[in-house]
Amino acid sequence: MRDVSIIGIGQTPVGEHWDKSLRELAYQALLAAMQSAGVERVDALYVGNMLSGELTAQEHLGALIADFAGLRGIEAIKVEAACGSGAAALRVGYMAVASGLCDLVACIGVEKMTDQQGSTVTSALAMAADAEYEALQGLTFVSINALLMRRYMHEYGYRKEDFANFAINAHANAVNNPYAMFRSPITAAQFAEAKPIADPINLLDSSPIADGAACVILAPTSIAREFTDKPVRVRAIAIATDTLAVHDRRDPLYLEGGALSAQKAYAMAGVGPADIDVFELHDAFTIMSALSLEAAGFAPRGQGVRLAMDGEIGLNGRIPITTMGGLKARGHPVGATGMYQIVEVAQQLREEAGLNQVKNAQLGMAQNIGGSGATVVTTILERI
Amino acid sequence: MRDVSIIGIGQTPVGEHWDKSLRELAYQALLAAMQSAGVERVDALYVGNMLSGELTAQEHLGALIADFAGLRGIEAIKVEAACGSGAAALRVGYMAVASGLCDLVACIGVEKMTDQQGSTVTSALAMAADAEYEALQGLTFVSINALLMRRYMHEYGYRKEDFANFAINAHANAVNNPYAMFRSPITAAQFAEAKPIADPINLLDSSPIADGAACVILAPTSIAREFTDKPVRVRAIAIATDTLAVHDRRDPLYLEGGALSAQKAYAMAGVGPADIDVFELHDAFTIMSALSLEAAGFAPRGQGVRLAMDGEIGLNGRIPITTMGGLKARGHPVGATGMYQIVEVAQQLREEAGLNQVKNAQLGMAQNIGGSGATVVTTILERI
Repeated sequence: MRDVSIIGIGQTPVGEHWDKSLRELAYQALLAAMQSAGVERVDALYVGNMLSGELTAQEHLGALIADFAGLRGIEAIKVEAACGSGAAALRVGYMAVASGLCDLVACIGVEKMTDQQGSTVTSALAMAADAEYEALQGLTFVSINALLMRRYMHEYGYRKEDFANFAINAHANAVNNPYAMFRSPITAAQFAEAKPIADPINLLDSSPIADGAACVILAPTSIAREFTDKPVRVRAIAIATDTLAVHDRRDPLYLEGGALSAQKAYAMAGVGPADIDVFELHDAFTIMSALSLEAAGFAPRGQGVRLAMDGEIGLNGRIPITTMGGLKARGHPVGATGMYQIVEVAQQLREEAGLNQVKNAQLGMAQNIGGSGATVVTTILERI
Repeated sequence: MRDVSIIGIGQTPVGEHWDKSLRELAYQALLAAMQSAGVERVDALYVGNMLSGELTAQEHLGALIADFAGLRGIEAIKVEAACGSGAAALRVGYMAVASGLCDLVACIGVEKMTDQQGSTVTSALAMAADAEYEALQGLTFVSINALLMRRYMHEYGYRKEDFANFAINAHANAVNNPYAMFRSPITAAQFAEAKPIADPINLLDSSPIADGAACVILAPTSIAREFTDKPVRVRAIAIATDTLAVHDRRDPLYLEGGALSAQKAYAMAGVGPADIDVFELHDAFTIMSALSLEAAGFAPRGQGVRLAMDGEIGLNGRIPITTMGGLKARGHPVGATGMYQIVEVAQQLREEAGLNQVKNAQLGMAQNIGGSGATVVTTILERI
C-alpha cells in the first residue's frame, strides 16, 4: 500500500453565495487546490456532498464538476455520508492513491444551501437521521441535539452556560480566518442571552447553514515533494458507523462510532490522543464538541465540557480545537465541512494559519461526523 | 496492488415492492450475498444509490443499511453517479480491497422508486442531466434519448423498427430469470404498435422504473477460494466521464465516456472486445444499446443496431447482451442497475445462468451508464 500525502489545498469563503452556483463554488476550490499543488490535471475527482439533489435539483456532481473544471473524461463520482460526506470523499481518494490505481486525485467537499428557505433546508438535513423512525415523528437535527444536550446536562450536572466557551473560542478564531462566515467575536453574555432554537440549544450553540467548497489534492508521498515543499502526510483515515436513530444506541451520550473511528485511526497511525497538536472537531452544536472530545479520547466521559470551561481548547491550550472557527463560526456547508476541516489542519501543519497558528503543530486530527454520530470519519495528518 | 475477486452474489427480484422499504431490499440482497460467500461479517459496505433523498426522504444510506443488517460499526458510505451509481460503488469497493485497507467488502446497489408518482420520479431522474442547462428547459431523460435516437436514425438511415430486436432479445432472456420484472416475451408486431412515449421512443424501447437491490462480496483473489469454489476475478474496472449536457459534446452520437472507460478497462485487463463472451450493457433505451455497443468496440460507429438486426446479440450470437433481461425486462432500479449487471455477469461466469447460460463464458463485461453517457463504468470479470 502506498503512502499518501496532501500536496495542495483550496477553499472558498463560507457564506451566502447567491451569485455562485454549486459548480462554480466547487471549481473555485478545485482551481485553488490545483494551483497550490502546481498541477494542471488529476486522474480522478471524488466529490463529497449531501444535499445537491434536494436543494439544487442536481445529482451526478462528479461528471458535472469534472467537465466544468475542464477535466472532461476523468474518473469522477460523488460520495455521501450526510454531514460526514467531505471526509468520506477524502477516504475514497486516499484508497485510490494508496492502491496505486491513481497518482493525482482531487477530493472536494461542496454544498449549496442558502438558495432555499430555512424550512426546506431543515427538512433536507433531517435526511441524515432515520426517515422512518426519527424524522417522521417530527424530529429535526437541532431537536435531536437538544435532547442530547439536555440529557448530558442532567446526567453530568452541567449548566447551559458551561458550554459557552466552545462557541466563544470558535468565534475568536474565526476573526482571523478570511474564509470564515462569522468573523466577529462573541461574549459569554451574548451566549447567555442568545435566542433559543430548541431548548437548551440557542442560536450561539448552533452552526450556520452556508454555501462553500474546499478541496485537497492527493499524491503518493514518494513524489509529493515534486509538487510542494510542504507536503502533509495522511497518517490515517478511518470511518466507523453507529445506529442512525439515536434511540437505538446503548448510550446516547457516547459516540461509539466516534470512538471506534478514532481508535482505528490511532492504531493506523501508531499514535494516541496525547500526540495530537490540533484537533478540528465537528461542532455542529456545542454538545457535539463535548461528545467528540470524549469519543476521541481527549477527556473522560462526561468531562468534555470541562476542557472548554478550563480554557484548554484555545490556540495555546492542551488541545486546540476549531482553530479557524469551526463549524460554528467558519460555517457549516454540510457536505463541504469535512474537507474544510482537512484543509484547516493542513494549514496548521503547513504553518499557513496566520495569527491562529498553533506553535510546532506536527500532528493534526479532524473528526467529521454524519448525523448525530452515525458516521464518523477520523483523519490524522502529519507535517513531513 | 492486490488482485480482487467476487466471492458472493445476491439480488432481490426487481419489481414494485410496496411492502418493502429501501433498507429491507438492501438487507435482502446483502444477506443473500453474504450467505453465498459464507461470511458473517464484512469490513466495509459501499452503497450505490441515486435517488433515496428525493424519493424516500432518506440520505445517509451507508450507516442505515450497515446497522439494519447487523453490521453496526463498520465503515459504510453511499456512492452516487446517477444511473451509474451501482458500478461506481463496485469501483470504491475494488479500491478498498486492492489497496489492502479492507479484506472483505460488500458493494450494494439499491433503489426504491415506485412509492412515488411517475411525474415525481421523472423529475428526480432528470437530476442526472444538467439541472441548469437541460432540465430547466424541460428536457427529461426519455426526451433526451428520443433526440439521440431521432438523430441516429437520420444520420445513419435506420428505421424505428430496426431497434426492435434489442427489446425482443431482452424480454426473451427475462422469461427465464426469476429476478426479472417482466418475464413475458414480446414480438416485433407488439414493438411496432407500442404506445409512443417521446417519439421515436415507445414503451417497448424504454426500461421500467422499479425497486430492487443487488450485492456482491469482494475479497483478495489470494484468499477467494477459502470462501467459494467459483470466484470471479475483477480483471478491470474503470470510470470515465463526459459532459453532463448532451449539447456540449463534440458528437452527441458518440459516447466518448463509454469509449474511454472501455479502453481503460481493456488496457487494465490486457484484452479486447473480441475476447468478451458476455456483455451486460445499459439498455435504458434501445438507442443506448446501440451507442454502448459502438463505444465498447463491438461495432463501428453507426453499426451498433446492425448487431441486433442480424441476431448477433442472442445467447448464441457473436456478442450476447442483456442475457438475463437487461434494464428493459429485468427492470431498471437506477442506482441498483449497475450491481445487477455485475451479479448477472458473475452468474454467467459461475455457470449459474440456468437456461440463459452462455456456453464457455470465460470473460464477461458490464457497462453501466450514468446520465446519457456522462459517467460510464466498464467492468471486466473473469472465471478463474
